[in-house]
Amino acid sequence: MKKIRVGIIGSGMMGPIHTEALRRLGYVEVVALAEATDELAKVKSQALHIPKGYGDFRKLIADPDVEVVHNCTPNAFHFEVSKAIIAAGKHVVSEKPLATNAKHSAELVERADKAGVVNAIHFNYRNYPLVQNMRAMVRAGELGRLFLMHGSYLQDWLILDTDYNWRVEPGAGGDSRAVADIGSHWFDTVQYITGDPVVEVMADMEIVHRTRKKPKIAMETYAGKVLTADDYSDVPVATEDAATILFRTQSGAPGSLVVSQVSAGRKNRLYLELDYAKGALEWNQEEPNTLWIGRRERANDSMIKDGSLLHPEVRPFAHYPGGHPEGYSEGPYNLFMQVYAHIASGATGKPTFSTFRDGHDEIAICEAILESSRSRAWIKVAY
Amino acid sequence: MKKIRVGIIGSGMMGPIHTEALRRLGYVEVVALAEATDELAKVKSQALHIPKGYGDFRKLIADPDVEVVHNCTPNAFHFEVSKAIIAAGKHVVSEKPLATNAKHSAELVERADKAGVVNAIHFNYRNYPLVQNMRAMVRAGELGRLFLMHGSYLQDWLILDTDYNWRVEPGAGGDSRAVADIGSHWFDTVQYITGDPVVEVMADMEIVHRTRKKPKIAMETYAGKVLTADDYSDVPVATEDAATILFRTQSGAPGSLVVSQVSAGRKNRLYLELDYAKGALEWNQEEPNTLWIGRRERANDSMIKDGSLLHPEVRPFAHYPGGHPEGYSEGPYNLFMQVYAHIASGATGKPTFSTFRDGHDEIAICEAILESSRSRAWIKVAY
Amino acid sequence: MKKIRVGIIGSGMMGPIHTEALRRLGYVEVVALAEATDELAKVKSQALHIPKGYGDFRKLIADPDVEVVHNCTPNAFHFEVSKAIIAAGKHVVSEKPLATNAKHSAELVERADKAGVVNAIHFNYRNYPLVQNMRAMVRAGELGRLFLMHGSYLQDWLILDTDYNWRVEPGAGGDSRAVADIGSHWFDTVQYITGDPVVEVMADMEIVHRTRKKPKIAMETYAGKVLTADDYSDVPVATEDAATILFRTQSGAPGSLVVSQVSAGRKNRLYLELDYAKGALEWNQEEPNTLWIGRRERANDSMIKDGSLLHPEVRPFAHYPGGHPEGYSEGPYNLFMQVYAHIASGATGKPTFSTFRDGHDEIAICEAILESSRSRAWIKVAY
Amino acid sequence: MKKIRVGIIGSGMMGPIHTEALRRLGYVEVVALAEATDELAKVKSQALHIPKGYGDFRKLIADPDVEVVHNCTPNAFHFEVSKAIIAAGKHVVSEKPLATNAKHSAELVERADKAGVVNAIHFNYRNYPLVQNMRAMVRAGELGRLFLMHGSYLQDWLILDTDYNWRVEPGAGGDSRAVADIGSHWFDTVQYITGDPVVEVMADMEIVHRTRKKPKIAMETYAGKVLTADDYSDVPVATEDAATILFRTQSGAPGSLVVSQVSAGRKNRLYLELDYAKGALEWNQEEPNTLWIGRRERANDSMIKDGSLLHPEVRPFAHYPGGHPEGYSEGPYNLFMQVYAHIASGATGKPTFSTFRDGHDEIAICEAILESSRSRAWIKVAY
Repeated sequence: MKKIRVGIIGSGMMGPIHTEALRRLGYVEVVALAEATDELAKVKSQALHIPKGYGDFRKLIADPDVEVVHNCTPNAFHFEVSKAIIAAGKHVVSEKPLATNAKHSAELVERADKAGVVNAIHFNYRNYPLVQNMRAMVRAGELGRLFLMHGSYLQDWLILDTDYNWRVEPGAGGDSRAVADIGSHWFDTVQYITGDPVVEVMADMEIVHRTRKKPKIAMETYAGKVLTADDYSDVPVATEDAATILFRTQSGAPGSLVVSQVSAGRKNRLYLELDYAKGALEWNQEEPNTLWIGRRERANDSMIKDGSLLHPEVRPFAHYPGGHPEGYSEGPYNLFMQVYAHIASGATGKPTFSTFRDGHDEIAICEAILESSRSRAWIKVAY
Repeated sequence: MKKIRVGIIGSGMMGPIHTEALRRLGYVEVVALAEATDELAKVKSQALHIPKGYGDFRKLIADPDVEVVHNCTPNAFHFEVSKAIIAAGKHVVSEKPLATNAKHSAELVERADKAGVVNAIHFNYRNYPLVQNMRAMVRAGELGRLFLMHGSYLQDWLILDTDYNWRVEPGAGGDSRAVADIGSHWFDTVQYITGDPVVEVMADMEIVHRTRKKPKIAMETYAGKVLTADDYSDVPVATEDAATILFRTQSGAPGSLVVSQVSAGRKNRLYLELDYAKGALEWNQEEPNTLWIGRRERANDSMIKDGSLLHPEVRPFAHYPGGHPEGYSEGPYNLFMQVYAHIASGATGKPTFSTFRDGHDEIAICEAILESSRSRAWIKVAY
Repeated sequence: MKKIRVGIIGSGMMGPIHTEALRRLGYVEVVALAEATDELAKVKSQALHIPKGYGDFRKLIADPDVEVVHNCTPNAFHFEVSKAIIAAGKHVVSEKPLATNAKHSAELVERADKAGVVNAIHFNYRNYPLVQNMRAMVRAGELGRLFLMHGSYLQDWLILDTDYNWRVEPGAGGDSRAVADIGSHWFDTVQYITGDPVVEVMADMEIVHRTRKKPKIAMETYAGKVLTADDYSDVPVATEDAATILFRTQSGAPGSLVVSQVSAGRKNRLYLELDYAKGALEWNQEEPNTLWIGRRERANDSMIKDGSLLHPEVRPFAHYPGGHPEGYSEGPYNLFMQVYAHIASGATGKPTFSTFRDGHDEIAICEAILESSRSRAWIKVAY
Repeated sequence: MKKIRVGIIGSGMMGPIHTEALRRLGYVEVVALAEATDELAKVKSQALHIPKGYGDFRKLIADPDVEVVHNCTPNAFHFEVSKAIIAAGKHVVSEKPLATNAKHSAELVERADKAGVVNAIHFNYRNYPLVQNMRAMVRAGELGRLFLMHGSYLQDWLILDTDYNWRVEPGAGGDSRAVADIGSHWFDTVQYITGDPVVEVMADMEIVHRTRKKPKIAMETYAGKVLTADDYSDVPVATEDAATILFRTQSGAPGSLVVSQVSAGRKNRLYLELDYAKGALEWNQEEPNTLWIGRRERANDSMIKDGSLLHPEVRPFAHYPGGHPEGYSEGPYNLFMQVYAHIASGATGKPTFSTFRDGHDEIAICEAILESSRSRAWIKVAY
């Protein structure tokens, strides 16, 4: 019973999440972790019970024991690291965004294709059972013509001007923040369900806090201390806290999205409504096990994630009986379930999961949004 | 105990609703009803237990027994009828929209001002206790700076191409349908809460059904009969079924609104989220007795309409104890409570209720939205 | 157009609610109000715009101008006042409870029957459109066999030991408080829907505050003053703050009800779940315009109150289009709509509304509950 | 980095769930699986990627490579298997119920104590972050005196008389079914939060289907075939489909629970309301990331599971940021996190997790409920 051996680069929030999801598969082994320094690699690999720790990601990639590499680095490193993985001819699973601009992401798509490596990007929200079921309903023709899409992706973790994070630093993650970080998830999820790509956008971005307060020394140092004005320095902010966006899809349907990281009380609310001729779909990631289906001529449906109610092809995405909630952790689990089944079966056939192509598409949309907000005009997406 | 005597013009959906709300006041008497013909006036005034019935609205206005006139006619007649009421020097309460274009609505504002008559427009949603409370919270400074507004107003009564009504007829209600009919309510409610007028809009309108099926003879005639294709004629539709809208307010805050009459399962869902620095407000007209208040640093609030929890000045808008739901009917009741208290006290002081000025403002916004959708550009609102 | 003339006895919370609901009918006129004293009658009748004010309820009953009398007195007076109305041969509408014990309530039923007067009791919750629709679904056989009933009626207005009201006074309202005041509404609503009377009960009553703090002088006197311990006197409490109840119905189905006036955050939450073989019904009075219908073999239903979705015979109970919420005030309005249509048509045929018989039934259940809690045993209801 | 080695007995629904949760820990290795036969052990161990497969559970227990054994057998085997694990001096984690009667469960508690082995039972619902937080709030004294508890545990998987499963067979799982299977979870969760044991019960059990239809041959055989009456045999049912239960706790507070496996549309709805003097707690396992806290003197709280809002000691139970839902799978994960930290640290100190003692307590409550339903009287729990 030979296991597929994996290396993880990066141990911030996502590295451990990847590690844990991989272990649930049973036939995949996380054999190595890379971090910024030897010391950090040692500490983190021990904490995560991973046998090897590398202080240089290139060494992990070069390790012949590693067959697949997960790129869980900060956004600014995604391009370089993924390029190196591909260059080594290894399968690659990248955190999103694929890169920080469309030129880079297009290059990665091309390189991965040429190298013939399996490539995946971690768009997790598609992998909820009820998201899969919405897609299955659309594909089965149960809903008819698409009339209108709308929704929001709201968080509150950057609402205060003292909320500070590498993501607000100029250049750290590209020219967009809220749209690139979370708006991209919304578009991926909706396009996955509808199968109808966004072709044109009209956007209005807003920086609520034009300067933010950066703690002068690392937060850990302040433990137990109340910060005063002197402990902060003002840093100008160039990326949006919020955006309002209109769009049109290939089929001609209009759409609207609101993205915000400054909406009090919203932690991670990816919310969508898709209005079709024969029914409307409403789903909220924060309560992912219920799908509302609006109906004109009968009572609305409130569908609980339950094997007996799902389309047959969706059932493998639901691991527990109805009423036993699937959660965030089943997103990466379901993604990797598909990726590693694909790898295990020889990587033939069309992938069922999100690939680098999907990662690039989201960056192309994001760049059109940026351009639209600057020019105050409708902009076509250049995929 | 002399009662204030009122005449109602029009007995469609809104005339009876006005009549009933007026009767609840106890000191107002509905003495006359006008309809299109003598025969209809007779039948309807008897059905509504109103003493006099007039087949000509001008006769009702001229009746010296009538002190206040309610204009409940179809949209296309609003301007002419209100103008006649003002010309007679009588107080006027109009259904919305105030007129079918901004030129007419501006004229009515000016005429009413000059005549010195009390003038009101039926924007009912402001009158829910929790809408009043949101406004009171904003005015009391509890919420800080306004960051972002978003929401939707969704219905499904025109989702089928066989759904037909005078409102879809060209010219019957102006160049806009969904935005004028329901979008205007959303803007009025939000502006009332925030006190921050919309100054610029960017809109994208959509006609889902470019032709609709009009029954060849009146629907009543078809009772008990299944209609076939031959029973319909195709009528081209020129007004929008849906619109996606971006806007900016005077204070510089961005906003987003989705309006639709083709969203399955939504009956009358006026939904809003207002993101302020110190808390976010979420409210849904279909469940009007709960207000969600998002918080960053503590649990979110779920406030039930309850006298003890409302701002003191809001309490008169809540007629029943907490947990005893206020409904749609308390909207006009609360509006008329204010209007007739104003009239009874000699019409001095600034009105607390929606006036013709508010009616005009919504039409101005609507015209900017139409212009923006045509030109695909941001348009400033010309109030 | 002769109006039906009504007198109201009592102007506490319910008198004005009856008055307003009656006025909405259009063909009923409230001509007189009775209160405890001439002075109070004068003040209150003027405030409510009622022509005549009587300081003695017997005078109101004797007034030949009064055809129907509404008994809105405190509970302890219900029996005596209703008896006098019946004795005068006038139609009677009583607030609940019908009396403070089953002996008295049975006597009223008998007297009303003998006198041949129209008699009604204000069980308002049956009159919500979706409650009517649940009953219609049951009667149409859509739901099959009844398996189980459960629910709760929760309030919080007596949660503090400083919450004081005549209802907690010994003797003021009979031996039961929470069950008599609100539990009775739950049983009436559920029995109305199921058509299956409660035959046996097992109850456990709880007095959370065995003494309560009664302000030494009237609350009004304390305006603007913070009360201290000296301003209160301790009063022993003999009636329950909460009760847990099991029951069985005539058809043999089991049930469970929790009643409480000390549940924080619950204002007036009458909540019920009725489990039938072919579907389960869930409804909450605080959000009365949505009915959840549980399903085993398909998605659950979430039905919005909407004319097109209701059983035809239920539609007159829904006054506004779907999405326009019906509220508390439409409860008495719908009751009186039925009562006065019955009176206007000569009081022939079986009443569709709640009568004294229903009022008596609820008192019989309440007495069985009291007896069960005392004896800690199952007790059969003696109707 | 030596891993703790585990054997799993049983590979029905729970064996794989245990396996997966254990793998997430990173320092635990599932080395062996036991099943009923060698053949089944081979097939299932390969499917689950477990190295060794045993056709006899005694061999797994005897394997010196196995340090901890998880008992995931059907209920009827729990006693015998756990007894054997303890006899071998190995740590034991049992699925619930601990045994099928209180005599056996008491014996297991005693044997485990004497043997000094770590013992745990899989009550998973306590391990949701918000359940932990409710307990922390109670222990911190934030809520004051306990007034009342109520709730329900509802499912619909046995609503049809053709729903058949070993759990309905006489003797397969003891004299109780719904209460033993799911009611026990409710009591464990509530007692864990309140710290206030149930001392007396009053119950009414109901068998909705007194006979059930058992397919004459295994369901798999029928694939693609519509079953007719001839394909079934009637089997009498002796265990309850539903129960209504009253109880009192040590502190004197009353409680009510409804348990049902025949409530249409409810998949696994463990629902509880705990009314305390200073606030009420409402939580529903099907949407486990929101906690409602009722308040009398301010708006109610709607708390999202979010690290910053949780009591500090609860934070390790929340693995993902706010708005990233924790689901069913984190229940066993959190239990095993505690169990294996305890084992890894030498099994000193008081366990923080559910032990055999808790398993026994629930069986004692269940037996009192059975006795109460038979005798129709209040019964004290004999722990």
